Formats: sequence, C-alpha cells, structure tokens
Amino acid sequence: MLTSALIDRTVAAALEEDAPWGDLTSTTLLPETAHATAQLRAREAGIFSGGGVFKAAFALTDPRVGVTLSRADGDSFEAGDVLATVIGPARAVLTAERVGLNFAQRMSGISSLTARYVSAVAGTHARIVDTRKTTPGLRAFERHAVRAGGGFNHRFSLSDAVMAKDNHLAVLSAAGGDLAMGLRERLATLGHTTHVEIEVDRRDQIETALSAGAHTVMLDNFDLDDLRAAVRQIDGRATIEASGGVTLDTVRSIAETGVDVISVGALTHSARAIDLGLDVVIEV
Amino acid sequence: MLTSALIDRTVAAALEEDAPWGDLTSTTLLPETAHATAQLRAREAGIFSGGGVFKAAFALTDPRVGVTLSRADGDSFEAGDVLATVIGPARAVLTAERVGLNFAQRMSGISSLTARYVSAVAGTHARIVDTRKTTPGLRAFERHAVRAGGGFNHRFSLSDAVMAKDNHLAVLSAAGGDLAMGLRERLATLGHTTHVEIEVDRRDQIETALSAGAHTVMLDNFDLDDLRAAVRQIDGRATIEASGGVTLDTVRSIAETGVDVISVGALTHSARAIDLGLDVVIEV
Amino acid sequence: MLTSALIDRTVAAALEEDAPWGDLTSTTLLPETAHATAQLRAREAGIFSGGGVFKAAFALTDPRVGVTLSRADGDSFEAGDVLATVIGPARAVLTAERVGLNFAQRMSGISSLTARYVSAVAGTHARIVDTRKTTPGLRAFERHAVRAGGGFNHRFSLSDAVMAKDNHLAVLSAAGGDLAMGLRERLATLGHTTHVEIEVDRRDQIETALSAGAHTVMLDNFDLDDLRAAVRQIDGRATIEASGGVTLDTVRSIAETGVDVISVGALTHSARAIDLGLDVVIEV
Amino acid sequence: MLTSALIDRTVAAALEEDAPWGDLTSTTLLPETAHATAQLRAREAGIFSGGGVFKAAFALTDPRVGVTLSRADGDSFEAGDVLATVIGPARAVLTAERVGLNFAQRMSGISSLTARYVSAVAGTHARIVDTRKTTPGLRAFERHAVRAGGGFNHRFSLSDAVMAKDNHLAVLSAAGGDLAMGLRERLATLGHTTHVEIEVDRRDQIETALSAGAHTVMLDNFDLDDLRAAVRQIDGRATIEASGGVTLDTVRSIAETGVDVISVGALTHSARAIDLGLDVVIEV
Amino acid sequence: MLTSALIDRTVAAALEEDAPWGDLTSTTLLPETAHATAQLRAREAGIFSGGGVFKAAFALTDPRVGVTLSRADGDSFEAGDVLATVIGPARAVLTAERVGLNFAQRMSGISSLTARYVSAVAGTHARIVDTRKTTPGLRAFERHAVRAGGGFNHRFSLSDAVMAKDNHLAVLSAAGGDLAMGLRERLATLGHTTHVEIEVDRRDQIETALSAGAHTVMLDNFDLDDLRAAVRQIDGRATIEASGGVTLDTVRSIAETGVDVISVGALTHSARAIDLGLDVVIEV
Amino acid sequence: MLTSALIDRTVAAALEEDAPWGDLTSTTLLPETAHATAQLRAREAGIFSGGGVFKAAFALTDPRVGVTLSRADGDSFEAGDVLATVIGPARAVLTAERVGLNFAQRMSGISSLTARYVSAVAGTHARIVDTRKTTPGLRAFERHAVRAGGGFNHRFSLSDAVMAKDNHLAVLSAAGGDLAMGLRERLATLGHTTHVEIEVDRRDQIETALSAGAHTVMLDNFDLDDLRAAVRQIDGRATIEASGGVTLDTVRSIAETGVDVISVGALTHSARAIDLGLDVVIEV
Repeated sequence: MLTSALIDRTVAAALEEDAPWGDLTSTTLLPETAHATAQLRAREAGIFSGGGVFKAAFALTDPRVGVTLSRADGDSFEAGDVLATVIGPARAVLTAERVGLNFAQRMSGISSLTARYVSAVAGTHARIVDTRKTTPGLRAFERHAVRAGGGFNHRFSLSDAVMAKDNHLAVLSAAGGDLAMGLRERLATLGHTTHVEIEVDRRDQIETALSAGAHTVMLDNFDLDDLRAAVRQIDGRATIEASGGVTLDTVRSIAETGVDVISVGALTHSARAIDLGLDVVIEV
Repeated sequence: MLTSALIDRTVAAALEEDAPWGDLTSTTLLPETAHATAQLRAREAGIFSGGGVFKAAFALTDPRVGVTLSRADGDSFEAGDVLATVIGPARAVLTAERVGLNFAQRMSGISSLTARYVSAVAGTHARIVDTRKTTPGLRAFERHAVRAGGGFNHRFSLSDAVMAKDNHLAVLSAAGGDLAMGLRERLATLGHTTHVEIEVDRRDQIETALSAGAHTVMLDNFDLDDLRAAVRQIDGRATIEASGGVTLDTVRSIAETGVDVISVGALTHSARAIDLGLDVVIEV
Repeated sequence: MLTSALIDRTVAAALEEDAPWGDLTSTTLLPETAHATAQLRAREAGIFSGGGVFKAAFALTDPRVGVTLSRADGDSFEAGDVLATVIGPARAVLTAERVGLNFAQRMSGISSLTARYVSAVAGTHARIVDTRKTTPGLRAFERHAVRAGGGFNHRFSLSDAVMAKDNHLAVLSAAGGDLAMGLRERLATLGHTTHVEIEVDRRDQIETALSAGAHTVMLDNFDLDDLRAAVRQIDGRATIEASGGVTLDTVRSIAETGVDVISVGALTHSARAIDLGLDVVIEV
Repeated sequence: MLTSALIDRTVAAALEEDAPWGDLTSTTLLPETAHATAQLRAREAGIFSGGGVFKAAFALTDPRVGVTLSRADGDSFEAGDVLATVIGPARAVLTAERVGLNFAQRMSGISSLTARYVSAVAGTHARIVDTRKTTPGLRAFERHAVRAGGGFNHRFSLSDAVMAKDNHLAVLSAAGGDLAMGLRERLATLGHTTHVEIEVDRRDQIETALSAGAHTVMLDNFDLDDLRAAVRQIDGRATIEASGGVTLDTVRSIAETGVDVISVGALTHSARAIDLGLDVVIEV
Repeated sequence: MLTSALIDRTVAAALEEDAPWGDLTSTTLLPETAHATAQLRAREAGIFSGGGVFKAAFALTDPRVGVTLSRADGDSFEAGDVLATVIGPARAVLTAERVGLNFAQRMSGISSLTARYVSAVAGTHARIVDTRKTTPGLRAFERHAVRAGGGFNHRFSLSDAVMAKDNHLAVLSAAGGDLAMGLRERLATLGHTTHVEIEVDRRDQIETALSAGAHTVMLDNFDLDDLRAAVRQIDGRATIEASGGVTLDTVRSIAETGVDVISVGALTHSARAIDLGLDVVIEV
Repeated sequence: MLTSALIDRTVAAALEEDAPWGDLTSTTLLPETAHATAQLRAREAGIFSGGGVFKAAFALTDPRVGVTLSRADGDSFEAGDVLATVIGPARAVLTAERVGLNFAQRMSGISSLTARYVSAVAGTHARIVDTRKTTPGLRAFERHAVRAGGGFNHRFSLSDAVMAKDNHLAVLSAAGGDLAMGLRERLATLGHTTHVEIEVDRRDQIETALSAGAHTVMLDNFDLDDLRAAVRQIDGRATIEASGGVTLDTVRSIAETGVDVISVGALTHSARAIDLGLDVVIEV
C-alpha cells in the first residue's frame, strides 16, 4: 500500500530532483504575493489515480497550497473533465506543477491500461495482476495504480513470497534426488505465512509442483489447450496463474480457460502516460 | 550526466525495494556454492542503453558477479542478440536479475523511441530534445537514454535555466507596464550563465521575447506555416524550439520548417519497455 | 533474511553511535602502528549467532582487520570456547570491540533461548516461531538469531501477511451482517500470495475463521483441553498456531496437543545477553 | 538525553521496519472512519519509561491520534494500572500499537531493573550507572530509561571521555619507559573538558593511575576487601568506580565499601521487557 | 536559491552536530517552564543575511519559539542595532543560539564583504560575482549571501554550465587539429540551454574562444591594459569576465576597463564573520 | 577526531553539491582516456591540514586516482612548496579539484591562524583552544585543523560537557535560594564523567563557581589585572579559562597572567583561506 510516509519521501525526492536549489523562473518573474488557481484537467479519457500523490507535490512545496480532488483514485473521467483544483501562492503552484503531473499522468496511465485488461476479462473468474516489472523506486505507486484500475497485486518483493522459477528448479534437479522431495524439504524451512508459487513450463511438471507444496502453480507460456487441460488437472488443489505474452487481444481467451490469475508485465512496464494538464489562472 | 555515485545510489535503492530482507526463493532453493552464467538477450530490435546501470545491479548485490557488456550505450541490436554476459554466484545473479532488467528495458525503450524520432528528422537541421516529463527519481537515467538514442537534453531542472511560460508572462502583463521591459529588468537579476528561454503562443509575441533578451524562443503549438514564418522572422536572433503535439508522423514536417530544436515529451513519458530477457545457466 | 546491505547499514550506524567523532582513548594512547590479536571467547555455554555481524563491526572500522570465525551461526559452544579470532591494527580492534560484542551477545542470547524452546518440543510436530515483539531497528537480526536457534519466523511485518485479531473482528461484527461473509469479502481484495491468519479466543469462533478463508487459525490463550479439541476440530483445514503465555515450563504440553506452530514473544523481548568477551593481545 | 529529533528519527525507522508499505490487515478490514480508544495497561508492576516515545509512535503514524500519559517517566505502577490513553482513527491506533509497545516495554524493563539496583544500595553513597553494553541504535533511549529508574549515566560514547583499560595500558608498558609518565604525556594532548578514567586490576596499579591524572579510577573485579582498601588508599583523590560481576545479590555489599559509582552492564544488556498491553475499544 | 527544504535539512544537521543527544547544560540547569526573550544584536556595522536560516535554527529546536526579524536579508545595520527578537522556552532559545548565530554571522560576513566590492564598482557597468570557492555543504547559503550583498551568482556547479579552463584547452590542443574547430564540435553535443564560458590567458586566444562559440570569455589575470584591449576586441560578441587577483584595491580599476563581470573568490573563501550576539532575558 | 566515515560522508556530500549530475566540462572536452598529473602547490606560507580530506575528494570521484602527500597535517610550508601529487584519469582529477582545494584551503587557513596564536603564547603555560563558533557541518574538520596548528579543542558539543553561562546562572538566581547550592544540586544529576565549566563575569562570582563544583572556571572579558588576581584566587582549585576579545595583539599578555586555557572564536569563524592551487599536467 501507499503510506503517507512513502508518498512524502518519494515526492520530496522528486521535488528535489526537479528544483534542487529552487525554481529560477517563478522566483525571478512572479511577485511573491501573486496567487493562482489551477485546474487539473484531463485531455483524454481514462481512470484516475495518484490523487494523494498529486496533493503531496503541492503541500510539500508550500503548505499554504490547497488541493481539492474531484475524482477519487479509481474513478473514470472523460476528456475535458476537471480532476482537481489547486489554489495557493503562484510561485509554489508553478514550481510543483510538473512533479504533480508527472506522478498523476503515469499512475493514471497504469490505472487506465489495467482497467482495459480488467474489462476484457469481465464476467470470467480471472483476476488481472501486476508483476515485479515496475519502475525502480516507484513499485508501491504503480501497484496502487493497478488496484485503482481494478487489478490485483502479486507479491511485493523477493522478500515476501517464494516464486520458484525454471532456473531455481533446474538447480535442484541437477543436484540429483527426487525434485519434489528436494523442493518440499527446502520449502519446509520457510515460515508458515510464506506463500509458495512454483512455475511450470509443461503440464508434466504440475504434479511435482503440487506435491512439493505449491500454493499457486504458475503456467508459463501455455497455449489455450494446455491451460484448459491444466485447470482440469489441478482441479482446485492450488491457485492457477497464467503468465507470458498476455495482450489485450489474448487476455479474454486466457481468462476463459478458467485460470484464477493472469499476470501482465505490460501494466507497469509499458503503460503510456495519460495526457493531463494544469490550467493556471494567476492573480497578482 | 549519469555519475557513478548517482547510479550506485539509485540502483541500491531499487535493490532494497525489490528485496528489503533478501531473496527468499534463491536463498531457500539454491546452494550457496552454485554458480551461474547468464546472457542478456534482446527479444526485439532496438537501441541499447543502461549498460552501466545493469552492471551495477549485479555488482551491488555481490561484488563477485562479473558483467561483460557486448553493446555500448547507443549501439543498435537485433532480436536475438546477446547484449551482455553475467557470471557469478547463482543466488546473486537471480536476485539482481529483475532490477537489472527493469533499468535496461526502460532505458533501452527510451533510446529506441528517441532514435526513431532522430531518424525521422535526419538530414534536417533540427535536434530532438527531451523535456521535464520524466519519471520521478530517474531523470538523469532517462536523459542519458535520450542521448544514447541520438537526442539532446533540455535543461535539467527548474534550477538551471529559465523558461518563461504563458503563465509567467500573464502575471507580468497583469502587473502593468511594458512587458518586454518588465521581463528584461527581472531577467537582469539572473547570473550571466543562466540561459533564458521564452515561450510564445502567437507570432506577435516573438519580438517581445527577443527584446526581453531570450536566448531561445519556444514556439508552442504553432502550425507549419506559422513555424516557417517564425523562423524567417527570428532569423538567427535566438535559438528556435518547436513544441507541442509532436509525433512520429509530424516531426519531419516540423523539422523541415527550419527550427533548431524539437522537444518531445513522449520520449520519456510514454516509451514502452524494450523486451529483454536474462537466460540463465546454473551450475551446481 | 539478513542481507549484507542491511548488516552494513545497521552496523555502520551502531559504530557511529558509539564513536561519532572517533575513539578518544585508542587514538590518544595507542601507537598508530600497534597491532592486536584478539579472541572472541564464550564465558558461558550457548548457541552462536551474529558471526557475520561481528565481522562487519571490525571490517567497517578498518578494512585491514581480519576476522576468522570458528563457529557458524547455529553452532553450540561451551564456556571457554573461542568463537572467533580478530587480527589487525590495535586501534581499530579496540574501537570496534564493544559494537561487535553488543551484536553477538544479543543475537547469541536469542539463539540460545530459542534453542531451549526448540529442544523442549523435540519430537513433537510443533514449530517454535517468533513474533513482532522485536527490538526496534533490529528485527531482521533477531529473526536471523531465532532461525539460528532452530526456530522459525512468523510474518516479517504488517505489510506482508494479514493477521486479523480480536480488535479487527470486533469492528466487522459491529458493522453488522454475517462476520464470516464480511471477512471473506474484504479478504478477497488481497493479492493471491497474501497469507491470512485469523485469531480466535474461543472454539466457537473457529468455523467462522475457516469459512472466511483463514490459512492459519491462531488460538489465543487456549488451555490444553481446548487446544486439543481445536486441533481435532480444524483437522488439517488450516495451520494451527498456539499463542499466549507460553513458557519453557508449558511449551511441551502445548506442543503435545498437536498444534503446528507455537509463537513465543519472549524469544526476542526478554532474552538476556550471552556473556562473550574479547581477549586482546596487543603487539607494539 | 533523548531529543525530540532523535525520538522522531528512531520511531519513524521502527514504523517503517514494521510496515514498510502499510498495514495490510487494518487497511483491509477496518473502515477508514472507525475510531478507537485504547488504554496502555500494565500487566505487572514496574517503573515506567518511554512515554514520549510511545506518544511519537502514534503521532508519526497519524497526527490525529492523541495520547494522554497518566504516568511520567520514572513513576512506579502496579499490575492493572492504566499508563496512557490513546484516542484516534482505529487504523492508525492498531498500526502503531506494536511499535509503541515495543519501545515502552523495553524501556520500562530497563527502568524497572535499574530501580531494583538503586533500591538495593539505598542509604549508601554509591550510584548505579550504565555501560556501553546497550542495544545498537538505542543507546540514548536506554540511558534515558536508566535515569528514569534512578540510575546515572556513564560516558555516552568512545568520543566523549577517555577510559584507559588494561589493553591500552599493556601497550604503553610494552613501549617501555615509565608508565605513569607515558600516560600523563599522552593524556595531556586531550582537551581540558575531557574526563579521564583509568581501569586497574590490582591495588598496586592505583598510584600509577592517580599520578597519570585519572579523574576516576575504575576497580575491575576487586573483591570486597580490596575494594575497601582501595577506597581508603584513594581517599578522595579521584572518583572510584567498581565494576565487574555486579548482581542484585552483591551490589549492596559493594556499595558499602564506600565506592562512588557501580557500573552494571546487565541494566541494558539483560533487562527483560515489562509486560504492557494495549486494550482497544473500536467504534465503527 | 535557498529553498526551505534546503534550509531545514542543513540547519537540522547543524543542530544535530551541536547537540547530538541534547543540551546538557540547559536541561540540567533551566526549569522546563522558564521562558526567555532574546535579541539578536549587531556588534559592528554590516549587511544582514541569513534571517530565514536564523529563524529555522529556533523553529527546528522547538516550534514554540517565535522569531521576529527586524532586518530583511540585504538590509544594512549599524553596531548596536537589533536585528531580530526571539521569544520562547528558555531551554530551546539557549540550545539553538549558537547554531543560529553561526549561520547569521557567516552569511552576514559574506554579504558585508560583497557589499564593499559592489560599492567599489558603483557607477560602472561591472557586476561582482562569486565563484565555486565556497564552504563545502553551504554553497546555496553563501550564494544567497552574495546576492544579499548586491553581488550576482556565477554557475552553481560543474553540472549546469561549461567553463573550459586552460587545462581543458591544453588537452584539446595536444590532441591535434584546429582547436577552435575541436572545441566547437565537442561543445555542439551540449544541450541548447547550456552556457559556455571559455577562459583565456592571453589576448591571442580570444578569437579562438569566440569562434568556438563561447557565450562568455573569461580573461584570467589580465593587466588593465590587456583588459581594455580585450573589451575593445570582443566588442559585444560575448560577455566578458575578469578574474584573478581581484582585491578591494584593484576592483574599481578593473571595472573601469569595461568588463561585464568580475569574479571574486574571496567573497566566500575569506570573509570573516560579522560580530553578532544574542542578548537573553530569561523569565523563570 | 576526524574518522574516515565522517570524511567520506562529508566529502561525498560536497562532491554531490559541486557536480550533482556530473562535470559537464570535463566530460564534454576531455577524452575518457586522458591522464593527468597535478601538484598541490602553496602560493603562500602556512601550516598544512586537510591532507586526508584532500585525498578523499579524488578517491571518491574515481578510485583510480592516486594522491601522495608530501606534507603531513601540522607541517609548515613555504610559498611554492609542493604539498601533494595527484595522478589519475584527467576527468576525475579536474572534477575533484575544486572540492579538494576548498577543504584544504580552509583547513590550512585555520591551522595557520591557530599556529600564530600558539606561537604568540610560546613559553607560557597557556593553551589556545577553539570554540563552538565553527562552520555548520564542518566542526570535526575545523577542530582537527586547530589541533594541526598546535591548538587544543574545547568541548565538542552541547552534549558532552556542561558550560554554565551567565544566562543559565541568571535563571537559577531568579529561582531564589542559594545559587551555589542550587547549582551543586542540579549538577549532581550529571554523570561522573561530565566536565563542568562555569562562566563568571566578575571576581566575586568565583567562589560560587568553585563551591558549586566547577572543574573549570571561565573568566569572561576580564582585564589583565583581574585575570592575575583571579589566577591567584583560584590557586589550582580549578582549570582557568580566559575568554572574550582575544586577538593576536592581546593573547600573550593574557597568557602571561597564568591562565590555563585561552579560547579564541576567530580561529574558526574568521580564518581566511590559505592560497593553494592545483597545477595540472594533462597527458592525452
């Protein structure tokens, strides 16, 4: 989740990056007493997210700036809609503008793309989930945006769940002995709250994963027939995740095979920014 | 530029984000003594960047991991090409994999998109430049990627050059008096090394900008006829930047009007990640 | 887990705390060229942990100091045993001594206490696990020490697993409607890798917890009869944790009821330090 | 002393450690509008400390939480006493609970143990003082707790007073020449505000320490007869500290020998936590 | 410029440096309830700067302390003038006093020295500018003080403008080929907002600098005759900076040669502190 | 003292301040393979200090740069002397130059000024000591420079010794009761290693200070006759510090009164930088 400590720390760093020793232009050209009212306006339709982060950009620049959101995270909007109103000292409003927009545009871009995937699988059993293919430093922000778009989150990091991939399994096989037993023994050293997910590339690996104690079996790059067969085979003994090459064109077919979870890297690594602008009215 | 201090600090934070208390899976499943060789391989064509950052992800995880780059930043590659080879303890290789890829995929995505814009204006006088519409926390990385793609950088931040936009000018006009003179007086308080860029929305504002002392005049959302007329009018008295709604479809026409600089927000706010993968061979 | 980044950061802060502007005594009294050999020696029996942390205290003070461990984390030792040998510049050895000892004594204290609990339940099915009652700033270190003593770890933090306690459940009940259904609905918003544990104070709450989807049911302050009855009732449908008032005197009886997990706050909040000393031989 | 800057920094780090990306349980299960009133209640008797730290845990989580202390640091309490009342948003109260308790339980544990030592020497001239055997990162907190328990503080760190131990003296002896003169010469390079304490293992070293200029002579592991003889010998020429193997059983006899200061490592390295709980009433 | 984020971060670090674990004297000797009123008083004449920084020293120590400035940065004062009034808890006032004074005395020292240089060139065309010879960690503060004294700022750092010195040019010459062309080619890789300054030691280097594209030519250690000749030669084709060995005795003659900018390292590396004191009235 | 941790942290921050995103000039103009040899050369006579800090500036920029010092801290030098030789990649040498010089010039300025005071009191009993009037962020560096110049250090901070000034005493007097007794009672709460210094403005306050337990009496702004009388009066019962208005003209007379310690704020608040330069020879 997005704690206020995390928002403040990240936004403060972004403001520092964008104006390490102040905003030369505003300070030079604007009277200290000028006030501004500005509207965050959508230039295309989408799903909003990043409202709290947008607010923080202004509040951390100058606590006298007030931001009123007219959309909550997760709300949809049309081109032309006003999403927020910003009122305060003109220098601060203009200084914080770009950082506020950079966060809101990116986060809304992710929410909007997620919503398209979620909509594509509507009526099926499947969830759309994110991956660890997030922007360095912004994982919590991007996961929040995925949830605002109707998606769900996968594990946060390497530290909070196990995901045994082909590479990990290759080692254990090479070490000799029964793979499922080797896996089971090693996984037994984990805490009882640690979720275990095991990736399989072929259907004949599924029983090994199950007998090793997988809570989730991840079917990597399975075609639709194999997905359907795997769903029947697993039959409720574990959560089933489909992964690999998922696009807006293929996601519904995948969902209709009956899998529980579909992970989509593109949600965070290839969402384009939603076009938002800040229309400013300055009063001297 | 991308200093090694900045790379180390940012990559260390990304590693911490991705494994705050270690990689549960590798530590649980891989013997401490297992070694791995891995290849960073392109799954589509593009322009590489982020080589130094990719190296740092592994070196900071475990200094015993060695990374040899077979492409320099700015080099092109085809699908299937090996871009780098990673050799070292298997746990560290797998722990650092995702962070290394996250940087390299994003940076190469920006370089590749930039190169398409640069290629589109080949033979003209115009430069492709980035904007401040960068990912919070990663501006220096994304500017580096723009340069690797053949683009140029705009000002780094609000602190190192003046860019007077419509909002700033509206205030000065409202304050009464001659705008050009007001601008000139205020701009005279800046240091002699500070570059001054003034945005104009219409051709009749150009002389005001020039007489105020603009080193660069930014023509915002001008159509092609107006751009051509503005180039003739300015006639070498300032650098000319075209901005607003630039796409791969329109950029060449804009360049052919004779402007010096074309700024493109999409380079950094909407580049999709290039598909790169790490193929790992583990030896127990 | 205890990453080297975490060890280095925490130990560096401890060294800074103990000598913010240097060690007045060693710098004043010891020649810069004096060397020392020192032995970390146990003054009572126990289970060792903190070897890597102990090494870091010296290495971060002066990289010329070498530390050789003669016990791995988790090894037992007797009074008088040498656990490590430290060789290097005398000033650095004496400057780092106290910080190195402070970590090793506390961590070994936790390992030693954990081992007594683990030993007490030997032969039963039950695991001894820690809690979040750890020393602020040292959770990863103390969890490592628990594992070195043969215990297991509970969730790391509030961010990586759900643990619904009586207070949480009281709210949902107050909100009206069926508690199990309310719980199930809300828990369904969690990611598929999130473990859900639900605390119950009475046996009649167990079915609610199970039907809400608990992966683990935590039986708080149950007497032995109720524990036995609960184990029979749950019958493999969830992991069973016993908690509350566990002591070395009671832990075996609790384990013999058939519970899976016994959580013991005292492992980290009330372990006393194991007595270790550094015997130094200085050569001028 | 415990500055508010130090409290805020340390508590914020502890909150971050315990909920790096938020409290999954409270956010998932509790309505954002639910309020809670909670009481910090003692489950055994002791001496309170950590009130300001306890408050900070809640205030830093959500500034809307109010904490009213009913015991000041240093006050005694009985089992069942209410020590503080916490009122605010239920999510924040439950999120901060464990961190607040972890500090208050440990600090009160130290105060309570210190008070037992102080009480044991009541009526004698001797002070009970702490050592540098504190928990890494929490020295200022533990020293505060020692004072709240009626004890006194030794030097804070290696940087603010000199303490020449046997190892230091061994070097100077090995370097040849008169030890007292060598010591005196080297100690003369210190600033005039630096306190000098010299450790002696045998009575025949006392005159050397005094002639070298010791402000305090530390008698390490002296038996009672030797302590009495040393007190007579030093006769007011320096402060006298007794150290080594001090327990609740032996401390009064040691105090009765007439020493000024008795240092007790156990105050901070082996105090067990006092059992405190937070009883929460949540209102939806 | 001096942002509030920068002031807060730097002043907090200074307070931490001066009282890492509190002010022993005030806490020991002053009742917690004592209040104080204090006046910042000049003991010699000068130009004030550092008002906002002075305020922050008290506000960060205790938000209950109020500071009212009676001089703005850039105002002149005489010996005996009251520059600010401080009212609040006596402990906090005395704890923050030295840090507040250390900043205000140094910054006012720089402003006062700058004002003497500015006054010396009054009526000429020349600006007095600072250099990078600033105190490590305090560059933004010292640049602010230079502006308060009527001076102007040179580039902030190595990252925001190019300054090609003799050493840089020597390399390019050694590399062979035409120097001006080599320079021009390399400088063409810079962004269009980057200011280029080239240092010349002799008049025969001026045309090379101009043809390479210098926006500013820096004349290093030129005598007055050469300065005059250079001004005529450059004739408006670039900004002209004189540098090297500038003193209060020589600065006017240099200014009268017609140069645009005179850089003076002494403004920041050798200004002595202005004598300011805090007269405290404490009320119990 | 100046620890390597402190040097590295402070120098890294200075390098970051001076080149947050790299050295535009060196990177643009110098080939990556060019090497340079440079000599740190004195342009006036003085006492060197800051050698280790100077080295760190280069080492932290690029570990391939080697620095050989030809003067140790505390050594004297004449104009023209080479103090250090720097060899390494030309880009790094030029990038680090200014930061290295900024430290060495300031620290050597303090050492040189200190040495003049120390020389002025040669043959007397008095020590020259610094004050807390240091540059924010650089106290440890400036104290080191004072020692290199032959001076001694006063207390490091408000946290490590008590210094009761007139303001503190005024409060206690106002609180009524016997001042000496009130002081003694409050000072008795301090640890036994805490040095107590009490400031007096008039001779009739001396006995109060002594009876309150002062280890040092500070005579503030006493004239020579009063100093002499005070020395006789105190007669070895405490260390005697003279303070206030000490200059190079007056310091010897003050020393000859027999005081032990003379504190001089100007050592750190008004030393001008010593003129040092880096003469660079670059090899392509």
